[in-house]
Amino acid sequence: MSDPEDDMREWWRSEIIEMEPGIIRYRGYAIEELIGNASFSQMIWLLLRGELPGKAEAELLDVALMSAVDHGPQAPSIAIARMAATCGVGLNNAMASALNVLGDVHGGAGEQAVELYLKIAANPAFEQSIEAAVAEEIDNFLDSVGPYLPGFGHRFHPIDPRAPRLLELVDLAAERGTVSGHFATIGRQIEAELEKRKSKRIPMNIDGATAVIYAELGFPAALARGLFCLSRSVGILAHAWEQTRQGGRNKGPIPRDYLWRYDGPEARPLPPDE
Amino acid sequence: MSDPEDDMREWWRSEIIEMEPGIIRYRGYAIEELIGNASFSQMIWLLLRGELPGKAEAELLDVALMSAVDHGPQAPSIAIARMAATCGVGLNNAMASALNVLGDVHGGAGEQAVELYLKIAANPAFEQSIEAAVAEEIDNFLDSVGPYLPGFGHRFHPIDPRAPRLLELVDLAAERGTVSGHFATIGRQIEAELEKRKSKRIPMNIDGATAVIYAELGFPAALARGLFCLSRSVGILAHAWEQTRQGGRNKGPIPRDYLWRYDGPEARPLPPDE
Amino acid sequence: MSDPEDDMREWWRSEIIEMEPGIIRYRGYAIEELIGNASFSQMIWLLLRGELPGKAEAELLDVALMSAVDHGPQAPSIAIARMAATCGVGLNNAMASALNVLGDVHGGAGEQAVELYLKIAANPAFEQSIEAAVAEEIDNFLDSVGPYLPGFGHRFHPIDPRAPRLLELVDLAAERGTVSGHFATIGRQIEAELEKRKSKRIPMNIDGATAVIYAELGFPAALARGLFCLSRSVGILAHAWEQTRQGGRNKGPIPRDYLWRYDGPEARPLPPDE
Amino acid sequence: MSDPEDDMREWWRSEIIEMEPGIIRYRGYAIEELIGNASFSQMIWLLLRGELPGKAEAELLDVALMSAVDHGPQAPSIAIARMAATCGVGLNNAMASALNVLGDVHGGAGEQAVELYLKIAANPAFEQSIEAAVAEEIDNFLDSVGPYLPGFGHRFHPIDPRAPRLLELVDLAAERGTVSGHFATIGRQIEAELEKRKSKRIPMNIDGATAVIYAELGFPAALARGLFCLSRSVGILAHAWEQTRQGGRNKGPIPRDYLWRYDGPEARPLPPDE
Repeated sequence: MSDPEDDMREWWRSEIIEMEPGIIRYRGYAIEELIGNASFSQMIWLLLRGELPGKAEAELLDVALMSAVDHGPQAPSIAIARMAATCGVGLNNAMASALNVLGDVHGGAGEQAVELYLKIAANPAFEQSIEAAVAEEIDNFLDSVGPYLPGFGHRFHPIDPRAPRLLELVDLAAERGTVSGHFATIGRQIEAELEKRKSKRIPMNIDGATAVIYAELGFPAALARGLFCLSRSVGILAHAWEQTRQGGRNKGPIPRDYLWRYDGPEARPLPPDE
Repeated sequence: MSDPEDDMREWWRSEIIEMEPGIIRYRGYAIEELIGNASFSQMIWLLLRGELPGKAEAELLDVALMSAVDHGPQAPSIAIARMAATCGVGLNNAMASALNVLGDVHGGAGEQAVELYLKIAANPAFEQSIEAAVAEEIDNFLDSVGPYLPGFGHRFHPIDPRAPRLLELVDLAAERGTVSGHFATIGRQIEAELEKRKSKRIPMNIDGATAVIYAELGFPAALARGLFCLSRSVGILAHAWEQTRQGGRNKGPIPRDYLWRYDGPEARPLPPDE
Repeated sequence: MSDPEDDMREWWRSEIIEMEPGIIRYRGYAIEELIGNASFSQMIWLLLRGELPGKAEAELLDVALMSAVDHGPQAPSIAIARMAATCGVGLNNAMASALNVLGDVHGGAGEQAVELYLKIAANPAFEQSIEAAVAEEIDNFLDSVGPYLPGFGHRFHPIDPRAPRLLELVDLAAERGTVSGHFATIGRQIEAELEKRKSKRIPMNIDGATAVIYAELGFPAALARGLFCLSRSVGILAHAWEQTRQGGRNKGPIPRDYLWRYDGPEARPLPPDE
Repeated sequence: MSDPEDDMREWWRSEIIEMEPGIIRYRGYAIEELIGNASFSQMIWLLLRGELPGKAEAELLDVALMSAVDHGPQAPSIAIARMAATCGVGLNNAMASALNVLGDVHGGAGEQAVELYLKIAANPAFEQSIEAAVAEEIDNFLDSVGPYLPGFGHRFHPIDPRAPRLLELVDLAAERGTVSGHFATIGRQIEAELEKRKSKRIPMNIDGATAVIYAELGFPAALARGLFCLSRSVGILAHAWEQTRQGGRNKGPIPRDYLWRYDGPEARPLPPDE
C-alpha cells in the first residue's frame, strides 16, 4: 500500500457514520434532522440496516425490544450485574460483565430460532406444504444440532405469557400489511408439529416469539442476538442500579453464612520433595 | 438468620420483577398488558424508576437515547467493538468489551453534568439569581474537580449539532408542561457564564444536552451514565456487525504493514547470573 | 504533525516490546535468550518494571502471586466465572466477566494498603518513630477515607492463615538482604496500633500481607491491583473449568427451585391513557 | 430436593478449595504449607489439575507461560488494553476488555493445535507410522475445519523465534524423563509434512510450540486457551500500565487528526412521512 493516511482511513472505513467538524450524519441523514423525527427504535434500525424503517415496522421492532428486558435475578446475567455492582466498579462495568454472558446458551436462542425459521422458509417444500417443510427442518435440526428446538418450551413457565401476546401483534401487523405473517405461521406450525410428536404442548417462548418478529422484519439471524443484548441490557442496568441502592459489598451468590460443599481430597500434607 | 430458604429469597430480593409459573410482572404490571401498550422507552423508565412515565416524558427520554447512539470508530468503545468482532468471539462479547470502557472519562460526562446541574439547582442563591448560583458552582467545580466542565466544549465539533436541537425539544416540552425547563435554563446559563469568562463560546455538547434532559426528567446522576450505556450500545452493536460483514481476522488498530515505535532499551544480552 | 506513518508509529509507541520479522525483544532482551533463563515471575517483573529482577526478588514476587489465587465461590468474581461458564461463552469470556469485577471493593484492598504503607514511610515522623508515623497516617486515613483500614481484619477468618506465613518469608528475605523489611515493620506496627485502639486484635489479611511484599519490592500501588488480578485469574480459570466439567446450563446464583423475594408494588392494572 | 441449606451448598460444590474460619486448603493442602514451597506455576497446576506437579513439570509449564506474554500493540487485545486504560476505568476493567477478545481466532490456536496433536496421537496408524498418522489427520483437518493448520506459519515472522527454543527445552525435558517427547515429534512431523506438500517451510509458531508443551504435560485442549489467557494477561497488564503512565484520554485507534473513510449513502434529506 502506498499512502499511509489513505491506509488508515480505509482500515477504519464505515458506512454507518460520517463526520466533519460540526456535522454528524448517520447513513446520510443529518443528526439534527433525525432528532425529534426518528424514534430510538428507528435509529436502531437505521444503524443496523442502513435505511429508516417506516413507523409501523419500527413499532414492531420496539415491541420485540420492550418484551425481553428482564427475567429476574435467577438468570446468570442479572445475578452477575447485581454482584458486580457491589464490587467497586462502574455501572458500565457491571453491565459489561453481565452482557458478556449472553452467549450461545444464555442469549443465543433467538438467533438459533431465526436460523431455523429461515431454513424452513427456504425449504423447497415450503411453497406446497408448510407442514412438510417444518417437519423436514425439525428433523434436520434434531439430527444435526440437538434434541431441543430453540424458542420452544420453558423450564419455568408452562405457557410463556409474552409469546401469545407478541404473536397477536404480529398478526395485526400482517393484517395491516406491515409484514407478511409467514414467520408467525411457521412458528405456529412448529408448535403444532411438536405437539403432534410429543403428545403434549411445548409452547413457543419469548425467544421463539421475538425471533418471529425479527424474521418478519428481515433481520439476519445474528442480529437477533444483538437485539436481545440491547433489550436485556435494560434489565441488567435496572438490577445493577437497584443493587447499588440496596448497598452491600462483595455480594456473593448466596447469603454469607452459607458455604459451598467441598468435595475434593481430604486434608493432607505436602508430598515429599522429589 | 434462621431459615435458609428465606435467607436465599431475601438475599436476591427485588422490586423490579415478580415471577410465578406463567406470570411475569414488572413493578406490578403484567407483561401481557405492557406488550403493545408500553414502548421500549417507557419500559426502560418503568424498570429504572418504578412507575410508568407518561407518553410525553417517555418521548423525551427516547430522544435522549436516540441522539447519542454513535460517534464513529475514532471513539475507543467503537474501535474496540470492531476489533473484538474479528477475534472469534460473539456479538455479545464484542459489545461487552466495548461497553466496559464507557468509564469516567469515556462515558461519565453526562453523569458529571447532571451532578453539576443538580448542585446549581440546590444552591441557595438559585431562587434569587440563576447567574449567581451558576457562577458559584462553576467556581466550586473548578476548585474541587478540575479545569474542564463536563458537557461543554468539544474537541472536534466547533458546535455540536446535537445540542441545540435537543434543547429545542426540551423548550417545547417545557411549553407543554411536560418538564419545568429549569435545567435547560441552567445549561444555557453555564454557556453564557463560560463565554463571559473565556471571551469565546464553549458550547454545550451532546453530554451536556442529554444531561439537561435526564435532569429535567428527574433521573439521578448515576443513571445518566447507565442510559448513555444503553444508547451507545446501539452504535457499538452496529459497528461490531458492520465489521463482522467486512470480515478480517485479529484486526489491529492500524493497518498491518505499520508497526509501533519501540522506544525502550536497545538490544542487550541477559545480565549475568547473580 | 506531518508524517502519517510517523504519527501512527508514535501513537502506539511502547518501551515494552520491539519486533521485526523473526525478532522479538522485551525491554531489549531477545525472547530466545529469555526462554529457559527467565521464570514467569521474572517475565512479569520485566514487562512491568523494565528490568529483570534478581532470582530472590522474583521468588518473593512469585510467593505473593501464588498466595492469592483463590478464595472460593462465595467471592463474586469466582461465582461469576462459574455462572459464565454455563452460558455458552469461551473460557476467555468467563474469565473476563469475572476479572472485570476486581474493582475498588473486591480487588482494591492491596492497592489501598500499599498506598497507606507508602504514606507512612513518607511521613516526616517515620525516621524518628515508626509508631508516631503509623498513628498519624491511620488518623489521616480514618478522617479522609473511611472507617476500615485496607489489609487488616477479615469477615470470615479470625486469623488469615496466609498473612503470618507471608510475613515470615519477608523476614527471611530481609535477613538475606533481598528487601529492607521496612514495610513488614510498618504492617506489624499497624496491627499493634489497631490492637491498642480497639482492645482486640485485627490481624493483617492476605491483602495487607501481599501489599507488604509489593511495597518491599518497589511496585507502585496501582500495580498491586494489577498483580492481584494476575493471581486471582488462576482461581477464576480453575473454577470456570471445574464448572465446565460439572456441566449445567445458565447456572443461576441459587438452586433452580428457589426464587427471589419480590417486594415491589402488588399486581395492578395499567394506568389509564393520558 | 429437600433441604435448602444442603441445596445451596451442593449448588456451589467444588473440589478446588475448602474453607473454615482460619483454614484454607487447596485440593487438601493447607495454604500455609504451600506458601514458600509451591511456586506460582505449581499452584496453577494444582488448581487446574488437582495434584501438585513435580518441579521439572512445573518448570516446563512455567516456560510455556513466560514465552507468550506479549506480541505488541498491533494485537487487538493489547490495543484494547491501552485504549481502555485512557477511558477512566480500573486496571482490572482494562484487562477484562482485552482478555475477553482472546476468542477462537485471537486466543484459540493453542487449543486447536492441542486437539490436532491429540487426534494424531490417537490415530490408529500412530504406533506403526507417525508419518501416516500425521498425514491422515492433516487431511481430516483440511477437509473438516479449514485450510490453515493452527500453530504453524506466521503472518509476520518468517521463523517465530520462540518455537525452536521451546522445542529445545521440550527435548531436554524428554531426555530427563519429565515428558515423553511424543508431541514434539508430532509437531516436527507436521512441519515436515507441510514442507513436503507446499514445497516451502511453514514453521511452527508460538501457539504450536506451547501446544506441544501443554500436550506433553497432559493438559486438555481447552486449558491451552485458559493458560494462554493467564500468560497474555501479563502483556495486557503491562501495556495498560504503560499507557496509564503515558496518559491520554479516550485514546482512539489512530492519531486524532485522522478520520475513517465514510463510504455510505451521500447526505440526504429524511424520507417524507408515510
